[in-house]
Parts: sequence; structure tokens; C-alpha cells
Amino acid sequence: MYPVEKNRFQVRKLEITDKSKGFIELLQQLSVCDSVSDKQFEERFLELNSYGDDHIVCVIEDDRSGKIIATGSIFIEKKFLRNCGKVGHIEDVVVDASARGMQLGKKIIKFLTDHAHAVGCYKVILDCSLGNKAFYEKCGLKQKGIHMTMYFV
Amino acid sequence: MYPVEKNRFQVRKLEITDKSKGFIELLQQLSVCDSVSDKQFEERFLELNSYGDDHIVCVIEDDRSGKIIATGSIFIEKKFLRNCGKVGHIEDVVVDASARGMQLGKKIIKFLTDHAHAVGCYKVILDCSLGNKAFYEKCGLKQKGIHMTMYFV
Repeated sequence: MYPVEKNRFQVRKLEITDKSKGFIELLQQLSVCDSVSDKQFEERFLELNSYGDDHIVCVIEDDRSGKIIATGSIFIEKKFLRNCGKVGHIEDVVVDASARGMQLGKKIIKFLTDHAHAVGCYKVILDCSLGNKAFYEKCGLKQKGIHMTMYFV
Repeated sequence: MYPVEKNRFQVRKLEITDKSKGFIELLQQLSVCDSVSDKQFEERFLELNSYGDDHIVCVIEDDRSGKIIATGSIFIEKKFLRNCGKVGHIEDVVVDASARGMQLGKKIIKFLTDHAHAVGCYKVILDCSLGNKAFYEKCGLKQKGIHMTMYFV
């Protein structure tokens, strides 16, 4: 394997130019995301960016196709519990359907958990379907309870 | 029932003086919270306060005893998904052991979900044990999946 291959799928932070590289289309594989205008994207990007280490969106770009093929995010909750502790919440993890089986999801989770650890969180948490439990167990997470929701729309 | 009784258990936002009213001791009924100094409390309080509507801690004070007997928090996550939507994350809901059965937990959840709705979230989510599922169903939430964790300490 050539060195270039070894570094082919690096995780990096989301950049403002990633909208044109299929970032929104990738999110559509996970949930509803009909239409995000360039202006909306830029506003949300800058807002999240202003949170610094407290909210990170990471991506993997396929440098051959120039497409974003994996992503995940984490934000840091500040608590009074656990002696004013911090918790990392992992959200919106998705790997492009054509890029599964290459451990990209695992790389995304490692990047996000490393970040949480580095900023002093005492734990990371995430919610998933029962079908994804085995994947997250391979990433080092354990089931703790259940996930409840209330939709307004 | 006198009018004063009807308004006895009002939900309000956390105030900086609530530490001396047993707020930390109440959290200890939920999870580890050994020692929070006045300075630590004040710093975290001011930090959360600076987030405005994006992070709310609410409490119920028993005006007879002057003690905080219920609490819960919510923070608002900004996403790209759902057309740059927002999600309310409910955390750290606890009712004092001596004040159970008075629907205080339900009042806390209603306050937090009303807040999420008012600021334009498309849903609220929370994680709990299987044992608390029935309570949250009475509050209008439904189980969607499972909750995974990774502890660093």
C-alpha cells in the first residue's frame, strides 16, 4: 500500500466549501433535509463555528471523487452534576451508502470521542436504533438505557 | 383549596441563590455530585446564563420549606439536518424523594417541552432507564431507540 492510500480517508472538521461537495446530500441519507440554501448553510456554519470546541462537525472527504462520504457531530453540554462536569453528545453520524465497510464510521466516532476526552468530558453519549447497537459496541460504547422523543412537527 | 395552594409549586428558572436552597443536594439524588464550591457554582451558572434561551435550567421551590424540590434542564442543539433545524435535549430531571406523587416531574417536563416548542425546535429528546419509560410516556414522549454511553472516568 502506498503512503497516499494510508492517508486517503482522513477525518477533518467541516469547511464552509463542503456544501458543494455533497455534505447535505449525505445528511439526506440519515434523515429529512429537503432544502438548505447557501445562505442558510453559511449562517448555520458560522453559528456552530462560533461555539469553538463546544460544537464540532467532522467529515471525511474522498480525495478521488471530491465528495464528502462520512460525517458526525458532537456538542459539549455543561452540567452542574458530576461536580460541574461536561458531557459530549454525538449526533448525526452517517457514512455514504457506497462507502460502507471501510471503517469510516469507526474513524468518525474515534475523532469525536477523542475530542470529548481532550476537552475534559467525563463521558460521551449517543442515541441510535437497536440495529446500530452492535456497531457502536465495536466503537467502545455500551447501552445504558432508552431514548425517548416528542415531535412537534 | 385556597388560591395560594394552587400556585404553590410553580416552575421557574434557576437563580444564583438556589445553591443555598439545596439545589446541589437535589442533584445528588440523581447522580454523583460530591462537591461544588460557591465559586464553581457561580461560574457555571453565569456560563449557562450566557447561552440565553439555548440552555435553561428550571426548578420548583417549595415556598414553605424554602427548598428546591424539583429540577430539569434543556439545551438547544443547532443542526444542518431538518433544514437547519433545532432539537431540545432534556437532561438532569429529578424530583426530591419526599415530593414524589405530586406531578412535579410532569410540570418540569411541560415547562421544558414548552420552551423547546417556543424556540422552534422540531422535537425534544431525552434518555432514561427502562424503569422511567412509563412516566415519560405520560408526559407525551415515545421510545424511539436506545441510549449508548462511553465513560472516560
